[in-house]
Amino acid sequence: MLVDHTRMSQNLQRMQAAATARGLRLRPHAKTHKSVALAQRQIADGAMGICCAKLGEAEIMAAGGVDDIRLPYPLNPINADRVIDLLERTRISFIVDNLDVAAGWSAAIAAAGRSVDVLVKVDVGFHRCGIDPDAANAVDFIVRVAEMPGLRFRGLLSHAGHGYGATSEAEIDAIARAEAAILTTLAARVRERGVEVAEISVGATPTSRYSLQQRGLTELRPGNYIYYDRTQVALGAASWNDCALTVLARVVAKPAEDRLILDSGSKTLTNDIARGFVPTPGHGAVLDSIDGVQAPDDDLRIERLSEEHAVVRVRSGQHGLRPGDFVRVIPNHACVVSNLVDSVWMVDGMDVGEPVHVSARGRIT
Amino acid sequence: MLVDHTRMSQNLQRMQAAATARGLRLRPHAKTHKSVALAQRQIADGAMGICCAKLGEAEIMAAGGVDDIRLPYPLNPINADRVIDLLERTRISFIVDNLDVAAGWSAAIAAAGRSVDVLVKVDVGFHRCGIDPDAANAVDFIVRVAEMPGLRFRGLLSHAGHGYGATSEAEIDAIARAEAAILTTLAARVRERGVEVAEISVGATPTSRYSLQQRGLTELRPGNYIYYDRTQVALGAASWNDCALTVLARVVAKPAEDRLILDSGSKTLTNDIARGFVPTPGHGAVLDSIDGVQAPDDDLRIERLSEEHAVVRVRSGQHGLRPGDFVRVIPNHACVVSNLVDSVWMVDGMDVGEPVHVSARGRIT
Repeated sequence: MLVDHTRMSQNLQRMQAAATARGLRLRPHAKTHKSVALAQRQIADGAMGICCAKLGEAEIMAAGGVDDIRLPYPLNPINADRVIDLLERTRISFIVDNLDVAAGWSAAIAAAGRSVDVLVKVDVGFHRCGIDPDAANAVDFIVRVAEMPGLRFRGLLSHAGHGYGATSEAEIDAIARAEAAILTTLAARVRERGVEVAEISVGATPTSRYSLQQRGLTELRPGNYIYYDRTQVALGAASWNDCALTVLARVVAKPAEDRLILDSGSKTLTNDIARGFVPTPGHGAVLDSIDGVQAPDDDLRIERLSEEHAVVRVRSGQHGLRPGDFVRVIPNHACVVSNLVDSVWMVDGMDVGEPVHVSARGRIT
Repeated sequence: MLVDHTRMSQNLQRMQAAATARGLRLRPHAKTHKSVALAQRQIADGAMGICCAKLGEAEIMAAGGVDDIRLPYPLNPINADRVIDLLERTRISFIVDNLDVAAGWSAAIAAAGRSVDVLVKVDVGFHRCGIDPDAANAVDFIVRVAEMPGLRFRGLLSHAGHGYGATSEAEIDAIARAEAAILTTLAARVRERGVEVAEISVGATPTSRYSLQQRGLTELRPGNYIYYDRTQVALGAASWNDCALTVLARVVAKPAEDRLILDSGSKTLTNDIARGFVPTPGHGAVLDSIDGVQAPDDDLRIERLSEEHAVVRVRSGQHGLRPGDFVRVIPNHACVVSNLVDSVWMVDGMDVGEPVHVSARGRIT
């Protein structure tokens, strides 16, 4: 797995500059790279900290010197000891969306004589985690959390993951607008109850460009933007030339003129499909060269994956590629692809630089 | 990730006993476990060696003392140095299906004054790799490979991966019969040309039970059977009680009465779909208890995965599970799931034993 250093740097700097220009704090989700070195790079570029999904990832990042880590994840208080331990070394915050769970955290953290930053997760339409902002008890829930000992209520947080299902630019725009409206309206109702709402945090790479235009938000948490991928291109969030992560694959067989086999299967590219405004078949985009132009070669479709084989259909019936040749593939979903290797390699074009350790990979709890 | 030691041992012993009873050599594909310790266990149970897909995996297995490794994979002669190095330490064999590639191997291996075992891969209907057995030049290709210096032609090898697409027992049976017929017929034609065909090797877990009934085969190469999974149950290859690998997941949120969130997403369960005789929706089977009966709880459907979340729909609208509770999930596809972790944990029921290192994980070439 190759990461083009120039492209990655541009992706990081552009998002940072856009957030800074709008007065938003950028807190990238580290899920995409899971690398202490790249988290430190994001912070050096101006990010205020990072996000992780698992406490084990936060522990690696904290050990690597990252001093402000947010887990936009419904942590369970069974892990209170680990959070208390992390609080010795770094600033930690996480989300709550359930009264019993919040009460469990409050009891555990207060018993340790500590306090921890929490945000309330709000469901803005993805229907995964989060409180229903239209529920009769939504404001009451937030006020109760804000009153719990051991918890320092910081504000509201959401993830517009349903942006990945959008079928047009207008729909992505509408999702980002609705998200901001839901959060700022709810925050106003909470403030009316005398509770401070210091932060309103949103984050998803597809909606970021529209979230930047909304008022009242304080924080942006995109993750994928460091690498981008075929899905982000198909959702209008990036161009092919922004895609920094590619898989270097070798043609290992050509059993028929219209069929090539690559040595990258589902254990490299994963079976994640590409999302996009229109259906985007195939298990990644094969580029037309390993250096130089690098637009997708539409003659080649990755039709099927086995664990260690990609079956590529040559749509025209004939192609010059032969066993031994290299190709580069932009994956459908970069975050799950980088998660499969211990290191990615920094490159510029085909000039190979240093490996970067995917240091927080494999932290399952 | 938990591996039930009793179930795993039964799976290994049953397949070994069935192969031995039919005079077939068992050479499990290590892709499913990628563990030196489990490869050694298979060999101790009677396997003649193992299979790997990547040379990097073979290098780990050889360093761990495995002395007979087959790569049923179209290796490229660019890697001749690594194969020559491995030949110092272990028996190595691999497949060829292309004349230029075979000639490249012949030149490289002969130049080193060595020889290596090769088999010709035959396409028996999966249409991935392999020569077309009906092609006019099929026998000529095999005879030419057998004559190449540096290559010791051992026989024919196939993989009936299309068995995963079968829609009935009868279809799996027919695929296994056709595979054996194609290989034995081709072998007879090759033998008529005075070329010895010492081995006829087939391998895929779904077809194994029917391949055992065919004549003329010498070797069976199933991989998945060590763990089995939801797909194998849906293909009639295993029962729920044979499934040895489960994911222990925690309920982390319950945002609605009919919606539970588990802490196992696509970075744990993968987005591999379940194959089976009938459509099998959902991203794994949630079991009805973490110990005891352990049949799938049909009230729970893993409807959607994010990277670190599983969204479970409660079909009845109500379920007793709450945040903090554990569930066990049988994944759709065990091979890609075990590939995501550094270790799996041996258990008996919920008695936790030792971790087993997934030692050949992450070897990408």
